[in-house]
Amino acid sequence: MRIGVVGASGYTGSELVRLLAHHPGGLEVAMVTSRSQAGTPLADLWPNLRGYTDLVLEPYEVAVLRERVETVVLAVPHKVAQEYVPELLEAGLRVVDFSADYRLHNAQTYEQWYHTPHTSPHLLQEAVYGLPERYRERIRTARLVANPGCNATSAILGALPLVENRIVDPTSLIADTKTGISGAGPRAEVRYLYATREANVVAYNIAVHRHTPEIEQELQAVTDEPVRVSFTPHLVPMSRGILTTIYADLKSPWRTEEVLELYRLRYKDEPFVHVLGAGQYAETKAVLGSNNVHISLAVDERVQRVIVTCVLDNLVKGAAGAVVQNLNLMAGLDETAGLRFPGLMP
Amino acid sequence: MRIGVVGASGYTGSELVRLLAHHPGGLEVAMVTSRSQAGTPLADLWPNLRGYTDLVLEPYEVAVLRERVETVVLAVPHKVAQEYVPELLEAGLRVVDFSADYRLHNAQTYEQWYHTPHTSPHLLQEAVYGLPERYRERIRTARLVANPGCNATSAILGALPLVENRIVDPTSLIADTKTGISGAGPRAEVRYLYATREANVVAYNIAVHRHTPEIEQELQAVTDEPVRVSFTPHLVPMSRGILTTIYADLKSPWRTEEVLELYRLRYKDEPFVHVLGAGQYAETKAVLGSNNVHISLAVDERVQRVIVTCVLDNLVKGAAGAVVQNLNLMAGLDETAGLRFPGLMP
Amino acid sequence: MRIGVVGASGYTGSELVRLLAHHPGGLEVAMVTSRSQAGTPLADLWPNLRGYTDLVLEPYEVAVLRERVETVVLAVPHKVAQEYVPELLEAGLRVVDFSADYRLHNAQTYEQWYHTPHTSPHLLQEAVYGLPERYRERIRTARLVANPGCNATSAILGALPLVENRIVDPTSLIADTKTGISGAGPRAEVRYLYATREANVVAYNIAVHRHTPEIEQELQAVTDEPVRVSFTPHLVPMSRGILTTIYADLKSPWRTEEVLELYRLRYKDEPFVHVLGAGQYAETKAVLGSNNVHISLAVDERVQRVIVTCVLDNLVKGAAGAVVQNLNLMAGLDETAGLRFPGLMP
Amino acid sequence: MRIGVVGASGYTGSELVRLLAHHPGGLEVAMVTSRSQAGTPLADLWPNLRGYTDLVLEPYEVAVLRERVETVVLAVPHKVAQEYVPELLEAGLRVVDFSADYRLHNAQTYEQWYHTPHTSPHLLQEAVYGLPERYRERIRTARLVANPGCNATSAILGALPLVENRIVDPTSLIADTKTGISGAGPRAEVRYLYATREANVVAYNIAVHRHTPEIEQELQAVTDEPVRVSFTPHLVPMSRGILTTIYADLKSPWRTEEVLELYRLRYKDEPFVHVLGAGQYAETKAVLGSNNVHISLAVDERVQRVIVTCVLDNLVKGAAGAVVQNLNLMAGLDETAGLRFPGLMP
Repeated sequence: MRIGVVGASGYTGSELVRLLAHHPGGLEVAMVTSRSQAGTPLADLWPNLRGYTDLVLEPYEVAVLRERVETVVLAVPHKVAQEYVPELLEAGLRVVDFSADYRLHNAQTYEQWYHTPHTSPHLLQEAVYGLPERYRERIRTARLVANPGCNATSAILGALPLVENRIVDPTSLIADTKTGISGAGPRAEVRYLYATREANVVAYNIAVHRHTPEIEQELQAVTDEPVRVSFTPHLVPMSRGILTTIYADLKSPWRTEEVLELYRLRYKDEPFVHVLGAGQYAETKAVLGSNNVHISLAVDERVQRVIVTCVLDNLVKGAAGAVVQNLNLMAGLDETAGLRFPGLMP
Repeated sequence: MRIGVVGASGYTGSELVRLLAHHPGGLEVAMVTSRSQAGTPLADLWPNLRGYTDLVLEPYEVAVLRERVETVVLAVPHKVAQEYVPELLEAGLRVVDFSADYRLHNAQTYEQWYHTPHTSPHLLQEAVYGLPERYRERIRTARLVANPGCNATSAILGALPLVENRIVDPTSLIADTKTGISGAGPRAEVRYLYATREANVVAYNIAVHRHTPEIEQELQAVTDEPVRVSFTPHLVPMSRGILTTIYADLKSPWRTEEVLELYRLRYKDEPFVHVLGAGQYAETKAVLGSNNVHISLAVDERVQRVIVTCVLDNLVKGAAGAVVQNLNLMAGLDETAGLRFPGLMP
Repeated sequence: MRIGVVGASGYTGSELVRLLAHHPGGLEVAMVTSRSQAGTPLADLWPNLRGYTDLVLEPYEVAVLRERVETVVLAVPHKVAQEYVPELLEAGLRVVDFSADYRLHNAQTYEQWYHTPHTSPHLLQEAVYGLPERYRERIRTARLVANPGCNATSAILGALPLVENRIVDPTSLIADTKTGISGAGPRAEVRYLYATREANVVAYNIAVHRHTPEIEQELQAVTDEPVRVSFTPHLVPMSRGILTTIYADLKSPWRTEEVLELYRLRYKDEPFVHVLGAGQYAETKAVLGSNNVHISLAVDERVQRVIVTCVLDNLVKGAAGAVVQNLNLMAGLDETAGLRFPGLMP
Repeated sequence: MRIGVVGASGYTGSELVRLLAHHPGGLEVAMVTSRSQAGTPLADLWPNLRGYTDLVLEPYEVAVLRERVETVVLAVPHKVAQEYVPELLEAGLRVVDFSADYRLHNAQTYEQWYHTPHTSPHLLQEAVYGLPERYRERIRTARLVANPGCNATSAILGALPLVENRIVDPTSLIADTKTGISGAGPRAEVRYLYATREANVVAYNIAVHRHTPEIEQELQAVTDEPVRVSFTPHLVPMSRGILTTIYADLKSPWRTEEVLELYRLRYKDEPFVHVLGAGQYAETKAVLGSNNVHISLAVDERVQRVIVTCVLDNLVKGAAGAVVQNLNLMAGLDETAGLRFPGLMP
């Protein structure tokens, strides 16, 4: 399957090319585009790719993409994605969209959180939320896959067994996320400078972060009880990685080992989700650069609350790795092809 | 007031000497002791103190301390503090204890969380919890001050106005702490190595961290409603700093600005506690190296929950700075003497 | 002495305000200006200054400065400084200039390295290079002080005793500098982002860095042998700090202890320069946030070469601390006033 | 080829297992040993390997190794390696040694730098220095390969074309290395703690670092002019990565582009060595986690000196990646098998 990456100058585009350099075959990046950097060899922007790719960034043109690729990965901001998706689908291309534009099924919810109208609401029902751990079969044949937000993936995978098994009050859910700075993309702003962020932790977008409705939508999809999530993101001084700590009130007494057993059952066939043993703690570095998710948990019996920690690499399982997983499914390949490498420690 | 620092080779001891190098007068470190490093000049261990102190680490001896100082600061682990405190008090010395041994009023609670008997429970009622924002007057005349835990200080100061004003359900309290690695002290263990902790976030001691009962004790002290706190500490890749995120369910609808007003009222006369405006976010680096506390908050009206973030430097306001503040009070000096410098940015 | 800071929104301006918050008296920042941020309270840009200053950034106007201050600190880029300095001097103000515009005595050298003409070459001879360790007496009465570059200060102080004592071939000098990212100022560029610089070391401006002619000028000033320096700066992943490693070929066999003795003699009356003992190594963190300089060295007898390492905080001794030292001298105060605090470890 | 890793609990052992998890086939880790951790599953020590290996650390026993593997990789300290190597060879096993014990051909040089006698000097001539860029053919059939030191690899590859082409004075060579903390191994010492090393740069072992004689030996091997190297290592705050800056006096005027051409010629068939263009600067992060080497250089015509920067990942090309490269050669496989992935940016 030949792939075009639109908006390939950023972190997710270059990460996708990095990951496909590992790929054993069946997926090939045949074209990369960028509005601002057209004409620049990708390896000049990303020196880690020197020797791995001769791709040169080109302008975005549907006609050229149609000729040269079957599937387009959109690595552009929300709102821009809405401009491109309809014409790409119309041109007969399949699309995987990194942006938030097609993640929410409800256009009103979209407009409420993103403060902008949705211009192709008819596609919201067709779009498949690109979380293979939930929608593997639908992804295989999808025309339009909406890749999940990185924070959302960690919150959803971390909380899913609690909600599916109805052992917690789903209005009590709290997701406290610690995220690496690369989550902001290569945005040249003072607040993302090294000197600003070294030795610095800060919360941001409290109560208004746009990954909240995704998390609620996907957890609501597995229960008929009402779901409400407080999602609080924090920047921590590291480039990559997310650790989400999830708090939920247990409806009745459960022990750590019993809850762990529910997680093991839920994820036993999932190639990338690893449930740690009691007393072990998931750490972000164990999955650095990899597509793996590690989950650990403990029940605080004193207050009858379960506390889950879920880690992943925001640029891999939280972004480009999930795209490769989805592309593998869409191309009829082994879902894990090109993604079976461990994280980088130390 | 002449001061002896017992166990001065670690972070808190050296930080105390660093801070007193700023001090305008009235407090003087006259003796430093260390079991393992006796004979070593303090500035050989801590090259930042080169040119600031000629102190040489000496063995611990009560008789010598009694001759040379009026007040002893204990920077030794819990259990060891219990061995020293009774004999130091008996020798007529006043004591500020960095350890947890005299923070809890109830010996049974101590034994339950620290898994060791308390050998001087009679002193627990006399000891004053060294948080000037609560016990300023008692500290002035105290014989024994128990300096709070660094995480506890941030959780207590962050949650106090919520509980005092009875606007939240005090059984719903969650404190999710992000702490710098220096919180562990200079312990030579693989898990605290640079290569282990770079780009790595991990939760630890979930549901069993020993700062929990301190936080509950001090919040319980301001209300007759039952208080329960889930306290979850996380290591984040930075040397110094703590950010605690507090979640609490509001009993009735409140708006961000209204809750902020309660905080401003509570802390308006506190020299080191700064309440930020709506839409501002407290960040650890703004208080790096200083005795300041910054607090920001937001109400998530959608879920009727208040989310507070409270930052401080774990080695200053969380340890040695609080000791200086307490020593100033005990010596009858201006409480802020030697502590009026800003944090280090960038 | 009332001081105006022009271009106060950047790192050096805010650092100056931070340092003067320590100052015991005699220096007062009475006005701060910024072209881009006029109207903004300084503490809104720099939250560490919250509670320390009510200063609001104002537009630059000579007439207003003349009314309200006696001395102006210029924290603007080179070329811009040239526009301001003549009119400020003409208005009867004294000036300390952070930029490179008046550091070089020779206008041709300036033009060769900065690729721009010098518009007030007549001031180059009057300007005093603001290194108190060399020009203390001239600084006291100077109208115009050119504050040294941060890298230059570390290279000059590190090499000075070698050249003054003529024990090395001064054409063999190499200065290999490792600098924190704050050296670049708060420039919002991708190459200075946290995600770019974490775990990343890179050399830059090899053979063309503009601190080279300063270093050569100041070392040439103490010898009649020709001086040539290879200066190679590197960015290392830290916010603050410089370590410069200096290599020089010894003219004849010397031993480490003998060379150390020359350094101790040279710096014995310098309040901020500390020479370490044989076998000790200067480290940047020992001087973090302070005005101190630590120097260590070793002779490699096998190759008859001396290797010196010199550390300082680029924003303090390398910038705002040196300014305070110079302002103290200009105001007839104790040179060390407000600067006698140790570095921040750990 | 079945491989046994002796001393597999450290960084290099786990990194080797991580890399072989990428390997397409032909190399298999069949046994891992550890004196201190026997009985522990490797993935319990290294959570990134969870799901990738069931290997359990076993005691070291030659007889068992002989039965289960053909080749042993020794990841033990120098001196210990000397105890094992003779008996392993005698047992008919091939050996790749991570330690320094068999890198130097001359036992006296070894004893002078390592301050310990060599107990099997007869093997020093047989041992092949494991740098494929020099000894590819001899490695294929070697019984004993001495894997190079990480700093040495970067200095040798960075300087080789200069010395081979006789364009510099080989007594003027200086190698100034900036190394990540993982270079020290998982040694639980205060000086390697996160809180010690954050924001901290320091030189160490000036004039006495043990990689010096390796560098001299290998550069001496390509010229009959006498070679002398000043090697100065620095710790910089990052886990992985080495940047070596090499200074050398040119014998006659050369231009940057001409010297680059010599490098391109030298390395044109080397799969892992990339020579950057004029004006580009090698950065450590571009090769993070990969087996690649990036080299950039500039001539400082003003002082007739060439300045080269050479980067690699100390745990990959500087250690375990080089071992895989050597094992591929020894097993008759494609030298690049399992090593063809790019570095991790950002």
